[in-house]
Amino acid sequence: AVNGSRLWQSLMDMAQIGATPKGGVCRLALTDLDKQGRDLFVRWCEEAGCTVSVDRMGNIFARRPGRDDSLPPVIMGSHLDSQPTGGKYDGVYGVLAGLEVVRSLNDMNYVTEAPVEVAVWTNEEGSRFAPAMVSSGVFAGVFDLDYGLSRADLDGKTMGEELARIGYAGDREVGGRKVGAYFEAHIEQGPILEIEGKTIGVVTDCQGQRWYEITFTGQEAHAGPTPMVRRKDALLGAARVVDAVNRIGMKYGPLACATVGLMQIHPNSRNVIPGRVFFTVDFRHPDDGILAAMDGELRAEVERIAGGIGLETDFQQIWYYAPIKFDESCVAAVRKGVERTGHSFRDIVSGAGHDACYLSKVAPTAMVFIPCIDGISHNEVEETTPEWSTAGCEVLLHAVLDRANA
Amino acid sequence: AVNGSRLWQSLMDMAQIGATPKGGVCRLALTDLDKQGRDLFVRWCEEAGCTVSVDRMGNIFARRPGRDDSLPPVIMGSHLDSQPTGGKYDGVYGVLAGLEVVRSLNDMNYVTEAPVEVAVWTNEEGSRFAPAMVSSGVFAGVFDLDYGLSRADLDGKTMGEELARIGYAGDREVGGRKVGAYFEAHIEQGPILEIEGKTIGVVTDCQGQRWYEITFTGQEAHAGPTPMVRRKDALLGAARVVDAVNRIGMKYGPLACATVGLMQIHPNSRNVIPGRVFFTVDFRHPDDGILAAMDGELRAEVERIAGGIGLETDFQQIWYYAPIKFDESCVAAVRKGVERTGHSFRDIVSGAGHDACYLSKVAPTAMVFIPCIDGISHNEVEETTPEWSTAGCEVLLHAVLDRANA
Ligand SMILES: NC(=O)NCCC(=O)O
Ligand SMILES: NC(=O)NCCC(=O)O
Repeated sequence: AVNGSRLWQSLMDMAQIGATPKGGVCRLALTDLDKQGRDLFVRWCEEAGCTVSVDRMGNIFARRPGRDDSLPPVIMGSHLDSQPTGGKYDGVYGVLAGLEVVRSLNDMNYVTEAPVEVAVWTNEEGSRFAPAMVSSGVFAGVFDLDYGLSRADLDGKTMGEELARIGYAGDREVGGRKVGAYFEAHIEQGPILEIEGKTIGVVTDCQGQRWYEITFTGQEAHAGPTPMVRRKDALLGAARVVDAVNRIGMKYGPLACATVGLMQIHPNSRNVIPGRVFFTVDFRHPDDGILAAMDGELRAEVERIAGGIGLETDFQQIWYYAPIKFDESCVAAVRKGVERTGHSFRDIVSGAGHDACYLSKVAPTAMVFIPCIDGISHNEVEETTPEWSTAGCEVLLHAVLDRANA
Repeated sequence: AVNGSRLWQSLMDMAQIGATPKGGVCRLALTDLDKQGRDLFVRWCEEAGCTVSVDRMGNIFARRPGRDDSLPPVIMGSHLDSQPTGGKYDGVYGVLAGLEVVRSLNDMNYVTEAPVEVAVWTNEEGSRFAPAMVSSGVFAGVFDLDYGLSRADLDGKTMGEELARIGYAGDREVGGRKVGAYFEAHIEQGPILEIEGKTIGVVTDCQGQRWYEITFTGQEAHAGPTPMVRRKDALLGAARVVDAVNRIGMKYGPLACATVGLMQIHPNSRNVIPGRVFFTVDFRHPDDGILAAMDGELRAEVERIAGGIGLETDFQQIWYYAPIKFDESCVAAVRKGVERTGHSFRDIVSGAGHDACYLSKVAPTAMVFIPCIDGISHNEVEETTPEWSTAGCEVLLHAVLDRANA
C-alpha cells in the first residue's frame, strides 16, 4: 500500500514552482525554476534516506540501497521540466510516484533485494531544447555527450552552459552502467483510458517520431507597392506547409499525428512581406513504414510549395526514432501489479515520447499510464484525480517489487 | 539648383544611426535610436538657421521664415522611423530632401514669400505601433490626441510613454493651424519607374488601405497523443487564412495587394498544438469599392475557416482609409518642376501609405517619387542612386517655390 494523499500533496507542492495563473506550470528545462524543482526533489529524497548523485547531463539519481547492493538497480523515473504552458502532472507524476514508492518502502521497513532508484531526466519535453528526451538518450547511448551538451535554445544558450549555471552539471558518467529494470508512471496525455472508463494503461508500445526544422527564405518587400506576382512570401509558403502537414496527418489517420507547433516569422512587421520563416514539424505513427511514407509526402510537399513561389528551402530532419516495443517481462510485471491491486485496465500504445523509450534500449522497460481529464496535456488545465494517481503508484510499487526481488 | 552630394552625404550620415550588417537600418519609432536620429536632424536644422518646435505627438517642425511670416507655411517632410529591417531612404529621403531645399535657399540667400518648414512625422511606419501615419493623422484631425498617445507596441508600451522617455513629448498643439501646401518626396518603393526608365513619379493618387487584427483561439494539447479529429489547432486556422488572403489579393489583381506580415503563435512549442494565434492582414487597392469587396471576402473566409475547425475568433478592422486624390494645383506644381528640370517622368499611384495621405485632408498636397533599385523597400538592401536623389530634390525645390511665392 502507498500513501496516496502524501503523493498528491507532493504533486501540489511541486506545482507551486513555476505555477501559472490558469493552474498550470511553466518550468522550462534548466531555468531557475527548474533548479528550484530539482532542489526540492533532492531535499525530499535525502529526507527519505536516499543517496543523490547527478551525471554530466544533469540527470539526478536518488538511490535506496538493496539487500544486495551490487545488483543492478531497478529505476523509476520521469522528468520535472514542463512546457511553457504545461500541466502539474506531465513527468512530475512519474518522478513523485517513484519517490512515493521509496517512502512507502521506508514506512514498511521493506528491504528490496536489488537497490531501487528514482531518476529525473533532464529536458524531456524538448520545448526549450530540441529534441525531446535528450538526456535519457545520452544515458542510453543513442546520443553522445557532446551532442547532448551542445543542444541550444532559440537564444543560442546550450544545455551545457545552462547546466553549469544552475549547478546541475554533475560529475557522474552518463549511463554506462547496468540497469535491472526501468519503470515509468505517467499520465496518458490522451483520451482513451477516460473514454473507456479504465484506471490503468499497461503500455506495450510507443509510436515512432520524426521532427523537422524548415526554413523558407523569400524576399522582404513592402506590402503596399509590391505586386502579388512579384512576391516571394516566406509565410505564404510556411502556411501552405502547415495545411499540407494537417492533410498528411488526416490521410494516415486515425493513428497518425502531424503538427506544426513552432513558427518564427522575420521580420514580423504588419506591412512587410515576410522574408524568412522558421518552423517545425512533428510526425508520429505507431507503424514505422507509415511514418516513412509521411516523411516522403512532407518532402514532396515542401519542394512543390517552395518551388511554386520561388522560396529557398533549408529542410532538416532533426530527430527520428522508430516505434518501440517494451520488454515483455516488464510489461507482465505491470500487468501482475494491476491484477493484484484490482484496478480496471487496458493495454495501450503511448502517443507521446517518454524517457522510457530510450531507457528501453539499455534496460528491460515498461510504463504505467493513468487517465487525465478529457485527455488534455501540454496545457495549463491538465488534470487527473487523487484516486487515479494513487492507483498508478500502487501498480508501480508492485511492478518494482516484482523486479527488485526477482 | 540643389547640392546633391550634400544631400547624399546627409542620407549616409543619418543611415549610421541604427545601421544593420546588411546595409539597412533598424530605427523603430520612439526607440533610443529614433531619438538619436531626431537629435541629429534638429542639430542640422538649427545649423541651417531654422527654428525647431515639437508638438505633443512628437512631430518636429523646422521653420525657415518667409518675407511675410504670417502666411501659412509650405511644409515638406516625411519620417525618420524605419521598419525592423528597413532601408536607408524610406522616409529619410523626404525629410533630408526638405532640409536640402532649405540649405539651398540659404546658399542662394533666397527669401520665399511664405515661410517654409521641414516636418518629421512620428511613427509613420506602423511597425512598432499600429496603425501607420498615426501622428500625421492626429495633425490632420483624423485621429484624436488620446488615440494617438495611447497606441501601444506588442509589449504594451504606449506612444505617450515612449515620447516622454526619449524627450520628444513636445508642448505644441498638434495641428490646428493653416498649412499653405504640403509636399513629400519619397522613394517609389515599387518597380514601375525603374522598369519604365523614368526618373520622377508625379504622384496623383494613393491607394486605400484596410488593416486587420485577428486572434484565433483553439485548444493547446499534446502533439503526440491527441488524435487529429479532436484538435482545435489555431495555427492551422491562421495558415488557411494566410492562403485565403493571398487568393483574395490574386483575384483582385493586378492592382490589389494582400499581406499577412505579422503572426504570433502561442505557446510556440514544437510538440504543442497551438492554442492561440494572433495575426494581421494588410489589404490595399486604388478602388474603394474593390477594397470593400476584399473586406467582405476576408470576413467570409475567416468565418468559414474558423467554423470548420472549431476556433473562436476575434476579428477587428483596426485601420481604414479610402483611396486619396492629391490636390490638382499641387500636382501641377510638381509637374511644372519636372518640366523646368527636364527629368523624365510619369504620373503614378502610390502603393504605400504616406503622411501626405493625411496631410491632404487639411492642406493642398502632392508627392514626388524617385525610383528605387528593383522596386525593393522595407528591406535592408533598399537602394536608390545619387542622381535620382538629386533629381527628386530639384523637383521638390521648384514645387515648393511655386507655392511659397504664390
Ligand atoms: N510525455 C511528453 O510530454 N513528452 C514530450 C515529448 C513528446 O513530445 O513526445
Ligand atoms: N511609405 C511607407 O513605407 N509607409 C508605411 C505605411 C504603409 O505600409 O503604407
